[in-house]
Amino acid sequence: MKNLFIENMTWEEYANITEENVLIIPIGATEQHSRHLPLSVDNVISVNFAQRLAKELNGFIAPALSYGYKSNPTSGGGPLFPGTIDLNGNTLTILVQDILNEFIKDGWKKIILLNSHYENQAFLAEAADLVIKDQQEEFPKIVLASWWDNISEDVMPQIFDERPFRGWDLEHAAITETSLMMYFEPDLVKNDLLTDEGIENVPRYQRYPVSKTLIPKSGALYTSISSTPEKGKIIVDDVVDNFLVFFREEFSLEELAY
Amino acid sequence: MKNLFIENMTWEEYANITEENVLIIPIGATEQHSRHLPLSVDNVISVNFAQRLAKELNGFIAPALSYGYKSNPTSGGGPLFPGTIDLNGNTLTILVQDILNEFIKDGWKKIILLNSHYENQAFLAEAADLVIKDQQEEFPKIVLASWWDNISEDVMPQIFDERPFRGWDLEHAAITETSLMMYFEPDLVKNDLLTDEGIENVPRYQRYPVSKTLIPKSGALYTSISSTPEKGKIIVDDVVDNFLVFFREEFSLEELAY
Amino acid sequence: MKNLFIENMTWEEYANITEENVLIIPIGATEQHSRHLPLSVDNVISVNFAQRLAKELNGFIAPALSYGYKSNPTSGGGPLFPGTIDLNGNTLTILVQDILNEFIKDGWKKIILLNSHYENQAFLAEAADLVIKDQQEEFPKIVLASWWDNISEDVMPQIFDERPFRGWDLEHAAITETSLMMYFEPDLVKNDLLTDEGIENVPRYQRYPVSKTLIPKSGALYTSISSTPEKGKIIVDDVVDNFLVFFREEFSLEELAY
Amino acid sequence: MKNLFIENMTWEEYANITEENVLIIPIGATEQHSRHLPLSVDNVISVNFAQRLAKELNGFIAPALSYGYKSNPTSGGGPLFPGTIDLNGNTLTILVQDILNEFIKDGWKKIILLNSHYENQAFLAEAADLVIKDQQEEFPKIVLASWWDNISEDVMPQIFDERPFRGWDLEHAAITETSLMMYFEPDLVKNDLLTDEGIENVPRYQRYPVSKTLIPKSGALYTSISSTPEKGKIIVDDVVDNFLVFFREEFSLEELAY
Amino acid sequence: MKNLFIENMTWEEYANITEENVLIIPIGATEQHSRHLPLSVDNVISVNFAQRLAKELNGFIAPALSYGYKSNPTSGGGPLFPGTIDLNGNTLTILVQDILNEFIKDGWKKIILLNSHYENQAFLAEAADLVIKDQQEEFPKIVLASWWDNISEDVMPQIFDERPFRGWDLEHAAITETSLMMYFEPDLVKNDLLTDEGIENVPRYQRYPVSKTLIPKSGALYTSISSTPEKGKIIVDDVVDNFLVFFREEFSLEELAY
Amino acid sequence: MKNLFIENMTWEEYANITEENVLIIPIGATEQHSRHLPLSVDNVISVNFAQRLAKELNGFIAPALSYGYKSNPTSGGGPLFPGTIDLNGNTLTILVQDILNEFIKDGWKKIILLNSHYENQAFLAEAADLVIKDQQEEFPKIVLASWWDNISEDVMPQIFDERPFRGWDLEHAAITETSLMMYFEPDLVKNDLLTDEGIENVPRYQRYPVSKTLIPKSGALYTSISSTPEKGKIIVDDVVDNFLVFFREEFSLEELAY
Repeated sequence: MKNLFIENMTWEEYANITEENVLIIPIGATEQHSRHLPLSVDNVISVNFAQRLAKELNGFIAPALSYGYKSNPTSGGGPLFPGTIDLNGNTLTILVQDILNEFIKDGWKKIILLNSHYENQAFLAEAADLVIKDQQEEFPKIVLASWWDNISEDVMPQIFDERPFRGWDLEHAAITETSLMMYFEPDLVKNDLLTDEGIENVPRYQRYPVSKTLIPKSGALYTSISSTPEKGKIIVDDVVDNFLVFFREEFSLEELAY
Repeated sequence: MKNLFIENMTWEEYANITEENVLIIPIGATEQHSRHLPLSVDNVISVNFAQRLAKELNGFIAPALSYGYKSNPTSGGGPLFPGTIDLNGNTLTILVQDILNEFIKDGWKKIILLNSHYENQAFLAEAADLVIKDQQEEFPKIVLASWWDNISEDVMPQIFDERPFRGWDLEHAAITETSLMMYFEPDLVKNDLLTDEGIENVPRYQRYPVSKTLIPKSGALYTSISSTPEKGKIIVDDVVDNFLVFFREEFSLEELAY
Repeated sequence: MKNLFIENMTWEEYANITEENVLIIPIGATEQHSRHLPLSVDNVISVNFAQRLAKELNGFIAPALSYGYKSNPTSGGGPLFPGTIDLNGNTLTILVQDILNEFIKDGWKKIILLNSHYENQAFLAEAADLVIKDQQEEFPKIVLASWWDNISEDVMPQIFDERPFRGWDLEHAAITETSLMMYFEPDLVKNDLLTDEGIENVPRYQRYPVSKTLIPKSGALYTSISSTPEKGKIIVDDVVDNFLVFFREEFSLEELAY
Repeated sequence: MKNLFIENMTWEEYANITEENVLIIPIGATEQHSRHLPLSVDNVISVNFAQRLAKELNGFIAPALSYGYKSNPTSGGGPLFPGTIDLNGNTLTILVQDILNEFIKDGWKKIILLNSHYENQAFLAEAADLVIKDQQEEFPKIVLASWWDNISEDVMPQIFDERPFRGWDLEHAAITETSLMMYFEPDLVKNDLLTDEGIENVPRYQRYPVSKTLIPKSGALYTSISSTPEKGKIIVDDVVDNFLVFFREEFSLEELAY
Repeated sequence: MKNLFIENMTWEEYANITEENVLIIPIGATEQHSRHLPLSVDNVISVNFAQRLAKELNGFIAPALSYGYKSNPTSGGGPLFPGTIDLNGNTLTILVQDILNEFIKDGWKKIILLNSHYENQAFLAEAADLVIKDQQEEFPKIVLASWWDNISEDVMPQIFDERPFRGWDLEHAAITETSLMMYFEPDLVKNDLLTDEGIENVPRYQRYPVSKTLIPKSGALYTSISSTPEKGKIIVDDVVDNFLVFFREEFSLEELAY
Repeated sequence: MKNLFIENMTWEEYANITEENVLIIPIGATEQHSRHLPLSVDNVISVNFAQRLAKELNGFIAPALSYGYKSNPTSGGGPLFPGTIDLNGNTLTILVQDILNEFIKDGWKKIILLNSHYENQAFLAEAADLVIKDQQEEFPKIVLASWWDNISEDVMPQIFDERPFRGWDLEHAAITETSLMMYFEPDLVKNDLLTDEGIENVPRYQRYPVSKTLIPKSGALYTSISSTPEKGKIIVDDVVDNFLVFFREEFSLEELAY
């Protein structure tokens, strides 16, 4: 397997790849993921997707961002759980702005922000906008994408075969994330601690200070029962296929012939 | 009708109401809303919902915030349309932080951020979090809510009777917003300019710079055909009922007896 | 009367007017104005002047800014009064910077910041400077103006016929503001609560923390006795005339022929 | 003469004086002052007033701030003149905030911001407010004062004996500043370059970009003819007397017996 | 080997360790390191030292910070080399502030910022100061340390046996870093590309813009000839011993008995 | 002696010198310097070196910056001593950015930041980088230099004849600074208070909160015994000679012929 991570290259090797190739920046969070998953779930998922994509797109992977924006109770369990290390919104935005500016200065024209922590979304978009906003040309181009937005409709019944799908917000430490972790890093999953816990009625609003009783003690927002590594593979294969369609289109890439 | 807007009060009248009552801060945007709706749609909707809620909750209304966060192409048509006046994320956050801090200093304990511009969401939440985060007590409490998150499932078929529902992102200048405007401010709707235009395939990612060809020339993301003031009323009545349930619960309010 | 407020326009209507016309941004504050006037005085005055000017200059009016910089005791009664909702200086500056940048991007070349809250002045000027400072061309041009700087000398004796003029700082909730409100929005004036109260000796310095005893309990800095709607009209007619002279000159406008 | 400048003390000497005494922070600017005065006028004036006050109040003088906020055309000649070195508003505010916080941490309870550059005013006030705003006690107390606000009415005719007073804004490099410099630092005044130049009609608004033709080529806003060191002395004696009254009151100081 | 990385723990496992143990945050940079070393040198070194320390101190390792402050030409080769991805100073400071605040909120009392990129130093210290400055208690305590400050004098001749030591600034991609990488991650060292290149005369000042000719084409500041994994081990053993002395003292730790 | 300080010039005199000459900005701190030296040591040293350099380089001196970045215990005694007035890092950076931008706008192309407070270094470098970073041309050029980096090796034994040199960090209020003050401003040195105190073992790390017992009560980090004005002169002559070599080279200056 060729070297996909720029951090393992010398600057000379790196200097040869910036102009024509795709750079993938994996972005996650350090955040509670119930009793059965580690704090690194969002990072592990981003980095593993990045590796699959890098192989398919002739791309390269930048050092991941392991700390993300504040966990929201109804999509991540919230700030009250130990192990949830939250950045302020402005901090994440200027961090990503600096990094994007530097990679663009090095010649990268095709950049993917690959995000697996929902709450990061708005602040990553803000960073990309602030970097690009006065640009008239189409390139450099930055694409911000998340795996959950790119699962095919027809795959969903295979994932939610035993338990119904209740919305992406609740898929925190639930079936999809657990299955992905079983597939990517099975050693980091405590299979004996999967639970059927979750929030019954999801509030349709946000409140501050956050509720101390809303989230189950485990931190899970929805059941992880019925997770399997096979489901993880189904998701990955499907999402990567869908990702490839638009990344190739946006970046005017040929399909690789092996 | 009693005076609901604090801006119309003297400071002495105002000083009497802060401790026990609910303060509603209507938040919108100045943003293109296709050919048939004015730039003020999000403000008009927030202020009108605020009036209904104020009456029901014995609440009062603060001066509205008429400028919002950046329009996103696939939920607002994007920054390329004239008339879309966008704030940076950090600007919106510190503006709302200052205002919340001041109202709390005046004694308000029950505050609603009533938002009708989707893109504002993350930056309003950040403001509320920064204001409240070190607070141990439950009050003052800030609730952030939007009408579209609070429509009942069983009402949807009445709204989307002729055209299918295609997701809330696309409901920009589409059936729900048009119907609400027909109900709240019919004079501001150009009935002859309703169209069936929209985006065919919604991208499942964001890109920077934004595409110049993605959004239809009108700026509409989805059809407004079949909008009626009656549908507007249905939405308002339903959403207000739903709002009332959790506002009363969060703020420990009795139902008003008239 | 034609539509003067851009918020009531569709983006297509708006797109037609930006290049050649004048944009007026009314700026005020939410601030105590003694016992007889509402919190909105500075906004009401700005918006009403904006309407008069828009008609004369073929101009258009942007959504007003209803929250302003911190009230100073000796020009606004200070931060200790309930209902005085103060922004930090930097917040106001970056808010106005964002808005100016966006309007300029839309093509506006002739912009008026019409301010009726004295304390805003320095932070509005800073915003305009930061937006324009590297510009070599004369346009876009931003003009920052306030009504009190533009009353003719010979009009003053008509306004201060019963009570002497004691300086503009003290004209907070006093004869000029009260008369303007009586003319613009008589329903918002509590005529029975006009008082002869005020500060005797105005300090010639500022102190922090602000004094808790300096300002009369009403919040008035000077008498409002002798205010009349007729005086309001005199001020408006005079100020608008004076405004028109320099707005026309700075923006190279012909006088409108009706 | 005892040592008035803290910079000349060891930390042990300094540690003895912070609790009970008055600290004066002289603030000026580096700014054009026409053909006959140096860039340092505002600093020279602040430091010299500080020395007089320090002697009278048993006070001490902090290192002066020699760079100030942006020069405004109609009160300082504006940014287009070489030698006018302008800070952004926020820079001045956080600089002064840091310094105030540090002096307060050292125990000072009576602090004077002695300002001689008009345009600094709002940003100094903002700094003081941000430092003090959550303070419940009366001390530490910060007083912000400028000499021109504290000239007695009955002294004015002595200063403006040959030329009329046309407002403090125009007193830039004009009779009062020139007279003060002749009194404080005669070697820095080029007596042969005094002129009768100035602005004829002062605009009653601000515009951006600033006008390139408004200000006379010299940079003077009003005549300096008739300036004398004697007038300088009159101003200083009068202003110091007036300063002493309120500094003693605000800081609960006894008059010193010599 | 027990689990040293908190990212691999569930939140419940993590919640048990925060109060009494040491948290090590490894900090590096993404920066050119001549022709024979990868961009990740500073991260690899920080993480490997962290592992050794964690074992000895019963400590745990937080996710590393892989992007650092701007490379300086005479200590890192400077910003002109591809692959050097630099953060602004303020970005690094607020990033580390946020992270420290969050870990402290989780109960950590003994925190090590383990830095291997010289240029980070001042901005890390600023972050720690801003987090701790108003704290009266001795704990939580943050210690900032770097390996090069902690090599024993008597070890130096063993490292610099063939080539003289010319100062730590020049030890960029030179003998010490190369030896450490040979010891920690031999696969990432291109042994055939070691060179004797370097800067002859090191400037005793910094200049902006940075010189385009000062640094050798390779990016090396000094020779890497004579580097060996054995020297790497000597450094690590020595530095860890020295680290342990003061970490144990500052954190009141007993020596572990195995 | 000609006029070296721009503050003493009129703007017209100043306007003539900006294009071709060297501008020196002296930068120091207000910081404890043990029992025998005043708070102003770093400023006095910077300004006096600036005068020597200005004469040799045909240069001019800007108003000095008298407040610097936070004192570090092991290079300045730290924040716990009264009289140490510390700026936050970001404050110093944006202050210097503003000033550099303004001087460059006035036409200066050769600028020296002459720093005598070690802790300022990183934040001054950051300011220079932010001002210059997108500049393609070699000029304007900013050089950042400190006297201690520029003492010749062969001079050191003359300075440290009675006491050994223990590193520049400890040279705070020690032999070199005391000798420089004896040479530059003998009246500000309390010769009877020189001590042999100092830190025994200098920590090889930084800790927060700073230790309350590390620094000797005097604030001295090392002995000042054996300081003489003659040593001060030796340092100055040597450093100025060394400065001149690279300033002339960087700024392409001829040696002045007298």
